[in-house]
Amino acid sequence: MTKILRINTRERSFRYEELGEYAGLGGRALTSRMVLNEVPATCNPIGPDNKIVMATGLLAGTLAANSGRISLGAKSPLTGGIKESNSGGMMALKMAKLDLLAVVLEDKPAKDTPLCTIKITKDGVTFEDASSFEGMGTYPVAEQLLETHGKKTAVMVIGPAGETLRLASSIQFTDPKGHPARAAGRGGLGAVMGSKRVKALVIDDAGGAGSEYADKDAFKVASKRWVEILRNHPVTGQGLPAFGTCILINILNEAGALPTKNFRQGRFDEVAEISGEKMVEHMEARGGRVKEGCHPGCVIQCSQSYNDKDGKYITSGMEYETVWAFGSNSLVHDIDDIARMDRLCDDIGVDTIDIANAVVMAMDGGMIPWGDSKAAIELLNRMYDKKDPLGQIIGNGTAFAGEAFGIDRIPVVKRQAIPAYDPRSVKGVGVTYATTPMGADHTAGYAVCQNILKVGGDVDPLKSSDENIEISKNLQIATAAVDATGLCLFVAFAVLDTEDSLDVIAKMISAKYGIDFKASDVAPVGVNILRDEYAFNEAAGFTKADDQLPEFFSKEIFPPHNTRWEYSIDDLQKAKA
Amino acid sequence: MTKILRINTRERSFRYEELGEYAGLGGRALTSRMVLNEVPATCNPIGPDNKIVMATGLLAGTLAANSGRISLGAKSPLTGGIKESNSGGMMALKMAKLDLLAVVLEDKPAKDTPLCTIKITKDGVTFEDASSFEGMGTYPVAEQLLETHGKKTAVMVIGPAGETLRLASSIQFTDPKGHPARAAGRGGLGAVMGSKRVKALVIDDAGGAGSEYADKDAFKVASKRWVEILRNHPVTGQGLPAFGTCILINILNEAGALPTKNFRQGRFDEVAEISGEKMVEHMEARGGRVKEGCHPGCVIQCSQSYNDKDGKYITSGMEYETVWAFGSNSLVHDIDDIARMDRLCDDIGVDTIDIANAVVMAMDGGMIPWGDSKAAIELLNRMYDKKDPLGQIIGNGTAFAGEAFGIDRIPVVKRQAIPAYDPRSVKGVGVTYATTPMGADHTAGYAVCQNILKVGGDVDPLKSSDENIEISKNLQIATAAVDATGLCLFVAFAVLDTEDSLDVIAKMISAKYGIDFKASDVAPVGVNILRDEYAFNEAAGFTKADDQLPEFFSKEIFPPHNTRWEYSIDDLQKAKA
Repeated sequence: MTKILRINTRERSFRYEELGEYAGLGGRALTSRMVLNEVPATCNPIGPDNKIVMATGLLAGTLAANSGRISLGAKSPLTGGIKESNSGGMMALKMAKLDLLAVVLEDKPAKDTPLCTIKITKDGVTFEDASSFEGMGTYPVAEQLLETHGKKTAVMVIGPAGETLRLASSIQFTDPKGHPARAAGRGGLGAVMGSKRVKALVIDDAGGAGSEYADKDAFKVASKRWVEILRNHPVTGQGLPAFGTCILINILNEAGALPTKNFRQGRFDEVAEISGEKMVEHMEARGGRVKEGCHPGCVIQCSQSYNDKDGKYITSGMEYETVWAFGSNSLVHDIDDIARMDRLCDDIGVDTIDIANAVVMAMDGGMIPWGDSKAAIELLNRMYDKKDPLGQIIGNGTAFAGEAFGIDRIPVVKRQAIPAYDPRSVKGVGVTYATTPMGADHTAGYAVCQNILKVGGDVDPLKSSDENIEISKNLQIATAAVDATGLCLFVAFAVLDTEDSLDVIAKMISAKYGIDFKASDVAPVGVNILRDEYAFNEAAGFTKADDQLPEFFSKEIFPPHNTRWEYSIDDLQKAKA
Repeated sequence: MTKILRINTRERSFRYEELGEYAGLGGRALTSRMVLNEVPATCNPIGPDNKIVMATGLLAGTLAANSGRISLGAKSPLTGGIKESNSGGMMALKMAKLDLLAVVLEDKPAKDTPLCTIKITKDGVTFEDASSFEGMGTYPVAEQLLETHGKKTAVMVIGPAGETLRLASSIQFTDPKGHPARAAGRGGLGAVMGSKRVKALVIDDAGGAGSEYADKDAFKVASKRWVEILRNHPVTGQGLPAFGTCILINILNEAGALPTKNFRQGRFDEVAEISGEKMVEHMEARGGRVKEGCHPGCVIQCSQSYNDKDGKYITSGMEYETVWAFGSNSLVHDIDDIARMDRLCDDIGVDTIDIANAVVMAMDGGMIPWGDSKAAIELLNRMYDKKDPLGQIIGNGTAFAGEAFGIDRIPVVKRQAIPAYDPRSVKGVGVTYATTPMGADHTAGYAVCQNILKVGGDVDPLKSSDENIEISKNLQIATAAVDATGLCLFVAFAVLDTEDSLDVIAKMISAKYGIDFKASDVAPVGVNILRDEYAFNEAAGFTKADDQLPEFFSKEIFPPHNTRWEYSIDDLQKAKA
């Protein structure tokens, strides 16, 4: 019987609970509903009333390809609003094996309580002292924990940033190789875990029975077609496996929408040095791996292993947004240094997008020179020292660093850093940045599809049209629904272009649960999620005034297409579900 | 003919304007109406659309005692809401002499434009290069400007903090002795001035005719009675002249409401060392001055000159809130060091309340030891160096420093630091902190009167009663009205206890303008101001969720009276006008 496991971090107690009112929800649908119902919207995000809800998706632990994402929900220390941040890694599969739909971390102990590691097995929960891990990076901690508890366990861990309540801290998850290189990066959830004095969570699924299928044969038929759909689409079947998400570097540069030098222009002179093509060239020459899955059952394989010149592993899964932020937006062109910075962020436990843009703020404020990747690395290293003021500033992310360094062009929405697609020249995604309850987040409604990639339609990215509002709205709804299933968001490329895809997903859900779930039921799932999230944010004090881009996007002209941001706040409300 | 002077800081141009729609408004009534009408609520506070409105009160330049306060209005960089911060000093009188109701600083030049000094005379406005002042404190700059432009001019000036856009930066004004010791301290208005690249503003009223009285004889009669009222009340006639506002140190300690060690307890063991009585003892022994006015025409004389052991001037006008924040709340008991910190804040151009509590955050976060005033002074000195990360953190105020140092008990409302009266044991002022549109501000509705001083009534400070909500509401209305007249807020002590006082104020306004202004017209002035301010804040994205105290006041018991904060957000809305 699928359960929810609640862990009280103050009492160090736990209890299992029936699904009750949460039955039928998964992933983001569950995290957002639980946060709305159980976390007071006006509470202190690092106080005892906040919770971390870890939820698997509706298809977790099944044969369905790419169904192993885990959703983390909480009130965000960074935005002050609701947050769902999802990640790959091994955790969702292990939870499903133990038949846990959700694990919830509740309450908090006194601030000076020693750190602990929580271990979950089929027999329950134990608490182990983790004082010796204090201040340690996620790589050595994960290595030690896997050594102690066995290579087959999965680890969720925070770095020094989460321990010290940094606003841009992440929660990292071990991937199939045991590297803590997968992140629930955005919104500072590491600080929520740190406030609860939990350094790590280890899950051992030995002896777990998993959950059953209502109709396994029907599931097999649907999941076979599902794999075909993913393999047949050019993005999920060819582009992503060949270059990872960094295939986008050249594409966005060509489109004139690759933000460069803190969003001052859309093309980067040295783009070839940081492209996906360059990355692959290095990986092939140095014994890295071009194709890897971030979780078992992935058929897209957009992750990689990136080695240095001596063939030594640096990092995995370097995303386009990371390479962009540490690359063109910082005027850095040394891809090896970018890989080192990605590794540092994973080890320190911080969001690459918010941290890289904090480094950009340091460059724009004259603290370090533009394009100086060595100085940037030195800056990141300061986050290991909890008393280093510069480390404290950088670790709190872009909005904070911008205010520290006296910057008047700070690229954030709801205090979360704007990602790698300039909203003036990819207007559909700009609408998403402004209106998603998450704070600036490309994954919340990836209109880059219709604007640039011409997947799922073709909408002019430069025009302030109603159409761009419409595609953002529809994508936000669809994305929320995908996030409820535990499917990787990248399936959307194939889904948008394949007629029977929603039907196939609905068939898998029906066959798993023995219900009659239809393709037409998918969108309402997304709408309900978004409305839960709007309700939380409204109670937390958000209004439409928070649904806007920073002023400089409206005041400055963005080359090469010489675009501006022109939507009014009221226009943008039409993008809300 | 009374005029408004508008100065464009980008074009370096100016124009005079009739009062038009602003006729009949003064002080805070004018600043808040103009900010509401002319500053887009969602604009970037350090962008070109923000304005600084400097307005004299309705009684400025008259014979009325204590009528020389100046109101500064803008969108606050600290709170994101509307701000009126008012100050003593020479400016209002000089403006009145030139018959200027308001001076408005508009637009902004490029970020790297050299700083300028604006000079206003009867002939208009000139702009002078101020690059040589870059990074300099307000004391040496004011000294040089008074040297250059004459001792009879008045100076408004920002320090290094305002130049570098610090969120807790102030705008300082010269007092009758030429010290820039009077501050429009709260809300970071120095950053607005700094964003406009204006280092200082000098006003020379030579040849100014002043404005006329409609009925000078009637004015004289009323203003004579006005002086009597102020002189006859024990607070304005005896207490404040004898000890300044620091008379409150012992009173609040006795009441068990003097926040100590970051609001952990209500009494300070070493209170005698930092009391008003101790201050006076030192001033008398060292050739300081116990009684001074912050502006000409003051009969209360609550300011002072405080000298060091060698008889050398350190600072003026050390307020209770400053001594509290650098004293008991930091566990510091060296009153000379507190005076040095007050001076440093004035020179750097920062708000003492927000900065001292930022130092408290540094102590609570283990950055410097509790009670270590030498380390605190060293910390403050870092603000002179614009690239010092610790200086950047401290200069951004309490909320920012708390987030930098990983503190989960940050005493702010709307990101502005809570002043010197614990809201759990002075509940009336707690209601004011939560609900004033200004962010935590005792001056916005000083219920310490009825709660502790028993002026204007006697309301139990410990009880979560409706009465405490009621007194806060009425005081917020009355205060806003007082802030429209240009009268010093401290007149309120006498006004609350003297039957004919409102009538006398109304008579002075009537006699000055030849209108029939009545005592019953006073409250509506206050209500209108507050409603303008609520309207701005609502458009800026504030909701009732912002009208609350930090969570720890509800969760922690406050000794010695063992009180908690118990009002709900909805309760508190009843305090809004």
